[in-house]
Amino acid sequence: MEAKIPPWQEKAAAKRESVLAKIKPEWRLSPAELERAAHRRELTGGYIEEFLEPEEASIISLDSVALVEGIKEGKLSSVRVALSFCKAAAVTHQINNCLHEIFFEQALERAIYLDEYYAKYGTTIGPLHGLPISLKDQFHVKGVDTTMGYVGWIGSNLGIKDPSQAHKVESQITTELLSLGAVLYCKTSLPQTLLLGETRNNIIGETLNPNNRNLSCGGSSGGEGALQALRGSTLGVGTDIGGSVRIPAAFNGIFGLKPTPERISYRDVANNNPGETTYRSTVGFLSTSLDGLGLMLKSVLSTSPWLRDPAVVPFPFRQDAADTYLSRGNLETGKPLKFGVLWSDNVVGLHPPILRGLRMVADAIRTGGHKVVDWTPPPQEDATRIHLAFILADGGHDIHTQLDLSGEPLIPDLRETFTLKPPMDLLEYQDLTLQGLEYEAKYSDYWNSTADDDGQIVDAVIMPVAPHAAVIPGKYYHTAYTGVLNLMNYSVVVVPVTKADKNVDTFDDSYTPLNDTDELNWKAYDPEVYHGAPVGLQIVGRKFEEEKVLAVAKIVCAALEKATKD
Amino acid sequence: MEAKIPPWQEKAAAKRESVLAKIKPEWRLSPAELERAAHRRELTGGYIEEFLEPEEASIISLDSVALVEGIKEGKLSSVRVALSFCKAAAVTHQINNCLHEIFFEQALERAIYLDEYYAKYGTTIGPLHGLPISLKDQFHVKGVDTTMGYVGWIGSNLGIKDPSQAHKVESQITTELLSLGAVLYCKTSLPQTLLLGETRNNIIGETLNPNNRNLSCGGSSGGEGALQALRGSTLGVGTDIGGSVRIPAAFNGIFGLKPTPERISYRDVANNNPGETTYRSTVGFLSTSLDGLGLMLKSVLSTSPWLRDPAVVPFPFRQDAADTYLSRGNLETGKPLKFGVLWSDNVVGLHPPILRGLRMVADAIRTGGHKVVDWTPPPQEDATRIHLAFILADGGHDIHTQLDLSGEPLIPDLRETFTLKPPMDLLEYQDLTLQGLEYEAKYSDYWNSTADDDGQIVDAVIMPVAPHAAVIPGKYYHTAYTGVLNLMNYSVVVVPVTKADKNVDTFDDSYTPLNDTDELNWKAYDPEVYHGAPVGLQIVGRKFEEEKVLAVAKIVCAALEKATKD
Repeated sequence: MEAKIPPWQEKAAAKRESVLAKIKPEWRLSPAELERAAHRRELTGGYIEEFLEPEEASIISLDSVALVEGIKEGKLSSVRVALSFCKAAAVTHQINNCLHEIFFEQALERAIYLDEYYAKYGTTIGPLHGLPISLKDQFHVKGVDTTMGYVGWIGSNLGIKDPSQAHKVESQITTELLSLGAVLYCKTSLPQTLLLGETRNNIIGETLNPNNRNLSCGGSSGGEGALQALRGSTLGVGTDIGGSVRIPAAFNGIFGLKPTPERISYRDVANNNPGETTYRSTVGFLSTSLDGLGLMLKSVLSTSPWLRDPAVVPFPFRQDAADTYLSRGNLETGKPLKFGVLWSDNVVGLHPPILRGLRMVADAIRTGGHKVVDWTPPPQEDATRIHLAFILADGGHDIHTQLDLSGEPLIPDLRETFTLKPPMDLLEYQDLTLQGLEYEAKYSDYWNSTADDDGQIVDAVIMPVAPHAAVIPGKYYHTAYTGVLNLMNYSVVVVPVTKADKNVDTFDDSYTPLNDTDELNWKAYDPEVYHGAPVGLQIVGRKFEEEKVLAVAKIVCAALEKATKD
Repeated sequence: MEAKIPPWQEKAAAKRESVLAKIKPEWRLSPAELERAAHRRELTGGYIEEFLEPEEASIISLDSVALVEGIKEGKLSSVRVALSFCKAAAVTHQINNCLHEIFFEQALERAIYLDEYYAKYGTTIGPLHGLPISLKDQFHVKGVDTTMGYVGWIGSNLGIKDPSQAHKVESQITTELLSLGAVLYCKTSLPQTLLLGETRNNIIGETLNPNNRNLSCGGSSGGEGALQALRGSTLGVGTDIGGSVRIPAAFNGIFGLKPTPERISYRDVANNNPGETTYRSTVGFLSTSLDGLGLMLKSVLSTSPWLRDPAVVPFPFRQDAADTYLSRGNLETGKPLKFGVLWSDNVVGLHPPILRGLRMVADAIRTGGHKVVDWTPPPQEDATRIHLAFILADGGHDIHTQLDLSGEPLIPDLRETFTLKPPMDLLEYQDLTLQGLEYEAKYSDYWNSTADDDGQIVDAVIMPVAPHAAVIPGKYYHTAYTGVLNLMNYSVVVVPVTKADKNVDTFDDSYTPLNDTDELNWKAYDPEVYHGAPVGLQIVGRKFEEEKVLAVAKIVCAALEKATKD
């Protein structure tokens, strides 16, 4: 007698199938092709080109700015670009399961409209005209599900039961992207609850890292990271409350921008426990290029999002701040920058590839003529304790409300953390708020104190994203390197630096772990397993310094490129 | 047998005496003078000059900008200015009980230093050089108590018991004011808990309205309002979480600026229940002139407060925003402004003086060539319900912690509201947060919808501050006209418009109250009692539009002045 499949599993399976079914037959891979791909450790490095026409391969090799410029100059059509990225995304999803939603037909219609517009008026409708942009499956697009990884939201969004109300909502940023000329075509995978540094849920299963399929793509904006690593997208939208933009950017070897919350609109975006606003999740961007991030930030802010979303602070894109910092890359005319480098949080040490990446960056910027000092901020443990307490404060109530819609269970990774508990006492919650504010102030004071020796305050800080280059599924023991920055709401850019190399990044037998967690993490490093995993690092500015960190990142990348060439 | 006086009463009495004792003998009024003043209904209108030398009277008649310019040009000395305002404050306090702290000696020392600096270098140390600035008794000044109206904080601040720690803290804004050249000399009265639209506590008793001593000076920055109405100060610092800057500004016939929270530093400022950060109290300013508010905002922002307080959003003073709006006052070159006018919140109607004040403003700006439309936002009841719930959420826990330090009771006005109760459930708290965000978004949508008819979004809204011109002690039934704007965190300027006139503002017998509260408020209007009470109104902008609302207020005041002259 067969065991009966629970209804939630049936729903999930049907959803998986229906997404795959939206890929047109000529873009489907054969069982042999799928089998071959499944056995590969690495899917990046041009492997995807095997499934594309040369013109398509050439188009998807372009980054965001080249794409919009090509279209604007009439060298590329929106339709060709859309079809190329839809096909690349279709292939990517088949070989590296990373999409929740596919709506290529709408994308094509939109691209046709854009080309017609361009043909008729000889101009684009906005700075993102024709650019395919992927969205993490928290952003609502009319007519499309937002499941956010919950089986109970399938067929609708936000668990809305009334069919007449489902699929009606559109996130403000979706509206903005459309008004700027973007082509939306797919929504990317994320972990159940959003609160995991990997990407696993009961609908699509798991998304692995296309750079090295021993490893996770990270999370929670993991599908974005994986899709872009395979060039199924050059620019996408994610969210970050503890590292969810930065982790997948670093793990997949792409760029990420986590702005200060309230810089970009979160209005009408699905979220975990949205009533917890002491520490807010923030909308951020992932891109195959640094210029892609700048293009996105500048474009979105040009729509004055604060007029429609009162939570957004009315800062337009400040070109002057960007220019001021960019000019300091040229040491003949500009004052050298001063960088802090966080070598360890003294809780969990860094795997050899990360430590080497940090050294590469520190050396490159020092060689470039800038100042580098050690960064020793207030204890990260304090920040982690406070930050996690807010995430757990409702006792998993919101999560279980969503799970109960379908009867699906928590995924095993989260069972211990999010067992339903009574919510925190309000007095404790308010006291924790004060502790958080105090920590934030202390951290800011520390930052100011960097001027004590030479009168120059640190301009930006280089930090690890995680103690490891990507993560072996189930072995993410320590998320403090990203989480602590959410407590300060700092602006952060992630840049790729190098890749784990088994010949250089050997296991350090002599290391004495600081504690049990450190030991777990230390032992999880295996040069063979990690070989080829990207190393990305955080470049950190203070609140609302997005223009500055993007400019500083540019200087860092240039220094790094020069150092690698020399 | 005499009843024993409780220790807290003795402490409070001793504190009252010690403050009075800091007034030097030659500035003390005789019993006969005190008696005469006590019988006056009005203390404004130059009455205070009776106690001053002509030069002193002439100095205190100047507003903030004239004072700093006079000092900068060498026409006035910091010492003469400081002595004149200290003396005026001393007299004011004796005839209209409004100070918690007096530190005239420090002020004089400081003024001597400033004059010496000026003599030596021929320049001022900053834009507030020599300007006496008063502080609500929430702001810490080194060496001085901050009681915030709590008996248990006497002799210290924040209830700190360790004498070695007491009086050490200095609020960031205090540091900023000193760095800008200000002279600090007194701290002003406020109500117990800060959560009352009047000014009454167990230390100093009550502060009445010097314009009309039948009435309250308002609250919670009530002492500021009363002091400035008698010209014991031209510029002071208050706070506002539900109207606490705006109410005393309006009730006393002066100007007030309530910025968006996080525009001005609240770091190291005493506060009620600081762990409730969903709706934050904001630091604001009160002044005898509109230019005083502008001077203060511009000066404080010139110190880049965000570098020292990470909660402050890094907006410098935006002269371009101010200029853009100022230029629209000139209709020959600028586009007319569009104003909304809130005639009633449909919960509690307006007393005749307020309604007349609104009409005066609406007529004046319409005559000035600007557009005026009715303002009918989402129901204020919803906002009030949510806003009050947050203020009550901790069940009075913080308040009772402070009361218990001395054993003092709640003042009668607050007994019902702040009886100790269990705190709110966290899930309810988080749900209310969502309701608040939804209301804020709805209000913003409504604001945008004002463009539907003519393509022009309302630039600013004119609103009552309260349904009455000042308040008869104990009869503040409805604070929604100010409180609702804290839910949106809007920028607001209060300007004085007119005064209640028993010959014009007659009781409206024909009015049909909307509900019981409305009836209570309606019946509380007595033309005889209210005669002479100032009428101030709110000019409301959106978040972080302080420069704009100050500019718009200037245009409104100019239109009003022109209309009054015509």
